[in-house]
Amino acid sequence: MTLSTKLTELLGIDFPIIQAGMAGGTTTPSLVSAVCNAGGLGTLGAGYMSPLQMREAIKEIRQHTNRPFAVNLFIPEPIDEQALSKVQRVNQVMKKFRDQLGIVESQITKFTESFEDQLEVVLEEKVPIFSFTFGIPSTEILQALKRNQTIIIGTATTVNEAIELEARGVDAIVGQGSEAGGHRGTFGGEFEDSLIGTMALIPQMVDHVKVPVIASGGIMDGRGLLASLALGAEGVQMGTAFLTCPESGAHAEHKRAILGSNEQSTVLTRSFSGKPARGIKNKFISEMEQHAEIIPSYPVQNALSKDIRSAAGKQNQTDCMSLWAGQGVRLSKSKTAEEIVRDVVNQTIDLLGKIQSRN
Amino acid sequence: MTLSTKLTELLGIDFPIIQAGMAGGTTTPSLVSAVCNAGGLGTLGAGYMSPLQMREAIKEIRQHTNRPFAVNLFIPEPIDEQALSKVQRVNQVMKKFRDQLGIVESQITKFTESFEDQLEVVLEEKVPIFSFTFGIPSTEILQALKRNQTIIIGTATTVNEAIELEARGVDAIVGQGSEAGGHRGTFGGEFEDSLIGTMALIPQMVDHVKVPVIASGGIMDGRGLLASLALGAEGVQMGTAFLTCPESGAHAEHKRAILGSNEQSTVLTRSFSGKPARGIKNKFISEMEQHAEIIPSYPVQNALSKDIRSAAGKQNQTDCMSLWAGQGVRLSKSKTAEEIVRDVVNQTIDLLGKIQSRN
Repeated sequence: MTLSTKLTELLGIDFPIIQAGMAGGTTTPSLVSAVCNAGGLGTLGAGYMSPLQMREAIKEIRQHTNRPFAVNLFIPEPIDEQALSKVQRVNQVMKKFRDQLGIVESQITKFTESFEDQLEVVLEEKVPIFSFTFGIPSTEILQALKRNQTIIIGTATTVNEAIELEARGVDAIVGQGSEAGGHRGTFGGEFEDSLIGTMALIPQMVDHVKVPVIASGGIMDGRGLLASLALGAEGVQMGTAFLTCPESGAHAEHKRAILGSNEQSTVLTRSFSGKPARGIKNKFISEMEQHAEIIPSYPVQNALSKDIRSAAGKQNQTDCMSLWAGQGVRLSKSKTAEEIVRDVVNQTIDLLGKIQSRN
Repeated sequence: MTLSTKLTELLGIDFPIIQAGMAGGTTTPSLVSAVCNAGGLGTLGAGYMSPLQMREAIKEIRQHTNRPFAVNLFIPEPIDEQALSKVQRVNQVMKKFRDQLGIVESQITKFTESFEDQLEVVLEEKVPIFSFTFGIPSTEILQALKRNQTIIIGTATTVNEAIELEARGVDAIVGQGSEAGGHRGTFGGEFEDSLIGTMALIPQMVDHVKVPVIASGGIMDGRGLLASLALGAEGVQMGTAFLTCPESGAHAEHKRAILGSNEQSTVLTRSFSGKPARGIKNKFISEMEQHAEIIPSYPVQNALSKDIRSAAGKQNQTDCMSLWAGQGVRLSKSKTAEEIVRDVVNQTIDLLGKIQSRN
């Protein structure tokens, strides 16, 4: 049994399991290559990486695996004037956290890395698979990727977004259900109208596009993979499940928080980045949510809160860290990436046999 | 192939498919008995029915089927003083809708039917299966049901609620994911903390209880049933899928609205009943949500808005009707109950074979 699907054929991998491109240092070259070597698709979450960091990470991934891997980037959004007008007020609210951490407000030199420079690395390195979220790259970029024979995977939270991605020529689509941890990929409307549970989202999406759909959101084990295949997906993307691996670069306290959480622990918040994302509730979220109307939109708030998140990490203060996690969090285990891929595959095959045999 | 599970054995049915006990006239004896005769479990949604109406409906169900059926009731909640203090203000806000419909505020004689009287009918009629939501009945009631050999099914939206239901002796548990249409069954905490997508909820729930778990929320076809079995559920409960059947008593405009909706059409709202419920967005919801803080809690608001919903129904004004629906709504079809049960079963078996054969 190989669990081969249209997705495994498209990507040249053994099992239809993608490790999500979680940004912020979680997806170390060690994690990415371990997933690839186990037969899945590892993804470098490069959204916050400089071009130089990306180049080094890609080099290191290639040193550890000769299998296909993916790089994930964030599609840039224009910086909104209104967001800039909120900077002073939100910094006043965040002063208490900086005081608590013993830091002073950092000078912001840029709100994000340059997407063009990041993309240049993807093109120059001839990355085998490019995945993205928060929007759709320009036609020129998509054409350049295609000339490179890079396989392109977009992210959709609604059927209409999936239809738009397919029309623009992507090779596969991640359908992100409301259970998913981290940032919402919504780009075609309001995020509140795009919180569709994975069970409902996937069959509706596969009915409207021809390219393979990859289910994400709440998928943690073989039960989730088999369920996703049943719904019509050609594979799964799992983030939280890989976050607690020893190979993951997530903060030790983040891993601990995940392993101690349950399905009710997470919340959607704009507090950290200005863009809705799912993470484990903490003091920073609960206090900032009281000032929701003055939190600047992404990427402004993301840049502003960076010093706080960074200092909190150094001081092991989970109160002020962004503890991204999905709603499947109670199923988290501390296993290696290889064990996760193997166990998901074995459990899927085992379950399939069990359901089949009792009928 | 029979798709037999622990649930089909427990309930004495052929297929692990339960038609949800939607209240408000949707679950006609004709719908309930058609589902039972097709091999599933039909449920009379009796939450808003008088004891006399219940008795007549049960009699009619028995005239049309000799198979097991279920009756669903709402566990009563104390009427909150604060809710009563909001009556005048919310009626002021709702005046514009009454004016539009050409009606005047009705005199409220009671907020709900008497649960004790409703339950008396369940006991006297020796209903084969009793399901409930919004809480847990008293131990005396549970014991009386057990003495009657009535099988008892509770509703949980979190793992902790499922654990509590099992400890109190229920025979099976509906795990209600955030995709589900109609009222949230949350009773063990805040509803905002209990909106777990079905894909994430079911495996976490089955890991913590021994009784069969029934998946609900976003399940519309064989893909949803097979996915639910993969997640560890022993069956599914489907509401929206049966609402558009010709046998359903839902308003023709409600059915039409469902058949014309997509996965982004629904929203959770307290507007109609004071308790969060998922339905298709309309003018009543959008206007009332602007006054969310003065909407009395359930069952007060439910009683207050009844005249508006009733007049809107008579006048075919979907603007003021409660158009309950789940997030799987784009998959709705206008098929008979028998066709739905048969198609779900055949699709499930077919899918299972397809997934198996390609491996």
